[in-house]
Amino acid sequence: MPQLRLALNQIDVCVGDLAGNSDRIVRWTRHSADQGAHLVAFPEMALTGYPVEDLALRSSFVEASRTALAALAERLADEGLGEVPVVVGYLDRSERAQPRYGQPAGAPQNAAAVLHRGGVVLSFAKHHLPNYGVFDEFRYFVPGDTLPVIRVHGIDVALAICEDLWQDGGRVPATRTAGAGLLLSINASPYEVAKDDTRLELVRKRAQEAGCTLAYLAMTGGQDELVFDGDSIVVSEEGEVITRAPQFEESCALVDLVLPAAAEEAPSGMADDGLEIEHRTISAEPLSAYEPQARGERGEHKSGEQSPRLGDDEEIYVALVVGLRAYLTKNGFRSVLLGLSGGIDSALVAAIACDAIGARNVYAVSMPSRYSSEHSQSDAAEMARRTGLNYWTVPIGPMFDAYMGSLHLTGLAEENLQARLRGTTLMAISNQEGHLVLATGNKSELACGYSTLYGDAVGGFAPIKDVLKTKVWELARWRNAAAVERGQTPPIPENSIVKPPSAELRPGQVDTDSLPDYELLDRILDLYVEQDQGREAVIATGFDAETVTRVLRLVDTAEYKRRQYPPGTKITAKGFGKDRRLPITNRWREGS
Amino acid sequence: MPQLRLALNQIDVCVGDLAGNSDRIVRWTRHSADQGAHLVAFPEMALTGYPVEDLALRSSFVEASRTALAALAERLADEGLGEVPVVVGYLDRSERAQPRYGQPAGAPQNAAAVLHRGGVVLSFAKHHLPNYGVFDEFRYFVPGDTLPVIRVHGIDVALAICEDLWQDGGRVPATRTAGAGLLLSINASPYEVAKDDTRLELVRKRAQEAGCTLAYLAMTGGQDELVFDGDSIVVSEEGEVITRAPQFEESCALVDLVLPAAAEEAPSGMADDGLEIEHRTISAEPLSAYEPQARGERGEHKSGEQSPRLGDDEEIYVALVVGLRAYLTKNGFRSVLLGLSGGIDSALVAAIACDAIGARNVYAVSMPSRYSSEHSQSDAAEMARRTGLNYWTVPIGPMFDAYMGSLHLTGLAEENLQARLRGTTLMAISNQEGHLVLATGNKSELACGYSTLYGDAVGGFAPIKDVLKTKVWELARWRNAAAVERGQTPPIPENSIVKPPSAELRPGQVDTDSLPDYELLDRILDLYVEQDQGREAVIATGFDAETVTRVLRLVDTAEYKRRQYPPGTKITAKGFGKDRRLPITNRWREGS
Repeated sequence: MPQLRLALNQIDVCVGDLAGNSDRIVRWTRHSADQGAHLVAFPEMALTGYPVEDLALRSSFVEASRTALAALAERLADEGLGEVPVVVGYLDRSERAQPRYGQPAGAPQNAAAVLHRGGVVLSFAKHHLPNYGVFDEFRYFVPGDTLPVIRVHGIDVALAICEDLWQDGGRVPATRTAGAGLLLSINASPYEVAKDDTRLELVRKRAQEAGCTLAYLAMTGGQDELVFDGDSIVVSEEGEVITRAPQFEESCALVDLVLPAAAEEAPSGMADDGLEIEHRTISAEPLSAYEPQARGERGEHKSGEQSPRLGDDEEIYVALVVGLRAYLTKNGFRSVLLGLSGGIDSALVAAIACDAIGARNVYAVSMPSRYSSEHSQSDAAEMARRTGLNYWTVPIGPMFDAYMGSLHLTGLAEENLQARLRGTTLMAISNQEGHLVLATGNKSELACGYSTLYGDAVGGFAPIKDVLKTKVWELARWRNAAAVERGQTPPIPENSIVKPPSAELRPGQVDTDSLPDYELLDRILDLYVEQDQGREAVIATGFDAETVTRVLRLVDTAEYKRRQYPPGTKITAKGFGKDRRLPITNRWREGS
Repeated sequence: MPQLRLALNQIDVCVGDLAGNSDRIVRWTRHSADQGAHLVAFPEMALTGYPVEDLALRSSFVEASRTALAALAERLADEGLGEVPVVVGYLDRSERAQPRYGQPAGAPQNAAAVLHRGGVVLSFAKHHLPNYGVFDEFRYFVPGDTLPVIRVHGIDVALAICEDLWQDGGRVPATRTAGAGLLLSINASPYEVAKDDTRLELVRKRAQEAGCTLAYLAMTGGQDELVFDGDSIVVSEEGEVITRAPQFEESCALVDLVLPAAAEEAPSGMADDGLEIEHRTISAEPLSAYEPQARGERGEHKSGEQSPRLGDDEEIYVALVVGLRAYLTKNGFRSVLLGLSGGIDSALVAAIACDAIGARNVYAVSMPSRYSSEHSQSDAAEMARRTGLNYWTVPIGPMFDAYMGSLHLTGLAEENLQARLRGTTLMAISNQEGHLVLATGNKSELACGYSTLYGDAVGGFAPIKDVLKTKVWELARWRNAAAVERGQTPPIPENSIVKPPSAELRPGQVDTDSLPDYELLDRILDLYVEQDQGREAVIATGFDAETVTRVLRLVDTAEYKRRQYPPGTKITAKGFGKDRRLPITNRWREGS
């Protein structure tokens, strides 16, 4: 049977950066060609970045993407890379769709093209459009209606984009009908805890349905709230894993495959679900037999090789580091600023920031008030000592006194004032020195609205926004243990991990004055928020009805606060970002 | 031909308030029945409120809606209202849809039911689902696949929901195929400037296509960023307007119609686009001839009557008042607080607030700094004097000095600090006294990012967020002129209207230091934001290339600030809320 060396480039691109993304694609194509690849692939919408959101509806951007694609094809040929076919995702528009009310303006398409010898051999658009969770693709795209198949060195390769694999029908069974020897799917599937297992099972199942080897190319990096975790996979027709690329890293997964020869006559006509087979022959002759290549220097993978998998907590921690780093670098920030309270949330955020951009670029300020404990400052200072981040103190007493002299504030108003004086302090330093402010709130707090608008909620990014409090502690422990394992100083002071959480906005305050114990709270939040269970169902699990009612009420009424919170890396299916959209004005109360 | 008295109840409901909405539906049904109505209708999703967003994916809420519908049917009968058929929108789920990946969880439907004699005679779901602008209905709903037709007093009435009229095909041509004598469409179509004209043309065209009289029932009131403007319409088969209900008011439009008698045999089978006709006979016998009723007391409309139309600026102003009032009352606020700077933006917001909830519930504070002009305080005080709103002064000097003593701030950091001290002052008073803070920024500022995060951007609602600066002046002039016409004191001081806009954050500062003249700016924003034109197209209209590039750069890079801004009433197709979704991380620069 014919051989093929496939290069799956799981790269990190930036939305809207057509020039930068093109450069990256050329660079990785050269690398792939240097390694002797016969077919080179890049992720879904690699040229434009993903997701482009409403930019898809702007015709100047669609045209720029089309122009950049043509220029990329020419440039590859000009730079001596024209002989290897390159599959790359980009933004196109349908020239067949007639304008009609309700169809996205300009009929944009989530497309991919096969580039060869300076031109576009074939292009096609995603057939199944996801419109749930973080996806809005019915808003943006017109679906594709072909099954694209290219013949490369005598092998028929069917092509698909992401959701084409997730939903039943369409290109997977059509690939079997067309008798292709390989199904290559390019993707930009965002990270979620444990999604890698789901994806692996999916790819295995679809390979069996397609009746051929399946190559699943992932994206890596971060875009606003989304993180892409790499982890490209190739499986055999039987569902056996042939190769698996590393998680969260840019990498070229190089795989030598032995695949069935294409039938002499090219497949044509209609395949399943009305998809018309569109076939192009790039090279009909199989290659002469060659020796599969050994593992290269830069982490390429040969057949049979699987990258080591990250542990559960490590995977989440790395996702948070990658998400923060991408947000900073892609938005032009080199340094961050945060309030370091001595508590666990800001300590974990500081550790993530140090890992993302280096401790010398992390600025942390302690902002004690009259209600701050002794340990709040000593624990913060200890964190600074352990990591080497930049640390100083700005007491908020004088500002507090100035306000209290002008306004008569008590209770919650007085508590919130302190948080806002800190927020204003951070923003003033940020404006003066150019650091991006990090908000340090966790998901349990956000769920319950246990934060101060314009206080601890200020910032450009919120790294642990999607991390429940109990997981915050677990990640802190994991990070310290990982340091010990590497022979380094654990970054987070033990006292920050073990002391009872407190906002320290009034004497002797602890979180449990306002919230149930976090162990209990997080289990209720898991049922209500992650699993969308109703009140009765949550109570039936064995929780006290009064506590459940109280927590659900908090969650239901905190939507405004959550909306005003900065974006942060999404690690679950139900975060508090664009994957969960609730009205602010909402009188629905569970079970009332 | 048979007669029918139709009651179109364009009411105001609240999302999630199943009990309150049910009460309202019963109350208006009683009113309709008292007026002798033979068929009573309520808007799209009147029982649940609209839009429910992700609540549609929560099965406990779907079940609660179904239960509330059944209870409503029983209650109407119990209260002696069971004989008149009532059409009402609610949230249901499909019992036929098989669960599949990519389909909304629980297969929810945007449904409507016909209630009669204590039960549900017929229910159906919206066929065409809008998924553009502010709509996400592919995310939430499974489409309906029937053409519902009820026979009432010998007249066949086909039923539809909102988008079923907007998109071609489906229930409109199916109505003609079924030979119905009336097409009744229930809607929750949000307000946009000039949309009333578009709607009227649409309804006329669809009546002609359906080959029968068309009754278009609208919603009124507000929900978060959306305002519903009422304006229900009935047109004849020839497209002639029979009646038109008032804009922005709850009202029962009562119309006496003379309609073709239904064929003896009920229509059945498949109509256009695979819609199966579902026919129910409620009453087969035509009514004895009766005298069409004269105009009632509460604004009912008889055939041939059209409510007076609001003028262009009045319409926008009323939309802003209704939007603010709905947000406040539905979220339980009785009073508002704003910073009154003496400038036009805060003056217009104060005027809107006074009109929405009365001047005695409006609290305004002047927060002068060393850079504040003399007139900033005198104009603010004059506004208070003219309207009677609550007004006082809190100088920010002491707070400013406290910060400047602790931090070394210059330039923009010093300017932003002043705005944030004001934001913190407003929030402190809000927390202490329970007023909702209003942000006073306009759309031109928001477009360009000309505001301070956590400064002038604080608040729970931003009434003029979708109003360009030049329109702010026009609305202020309109409001003052309207007062003169009514023999009242114009609320807005003339000096606030005529003086050059300034943020007063440094000596001698005016907006034109940072932005082009507003006349010019707003024309560029109209082309770029409202009309989605690219840079080249904007320049081709005759603008200076450098100015255009500068403005577009400002707009492209201000996405983060816009996202953090409070919600505000949407009055255009392209606001800065859920109708416009751009990535924060975005390196696309028009024409660069």
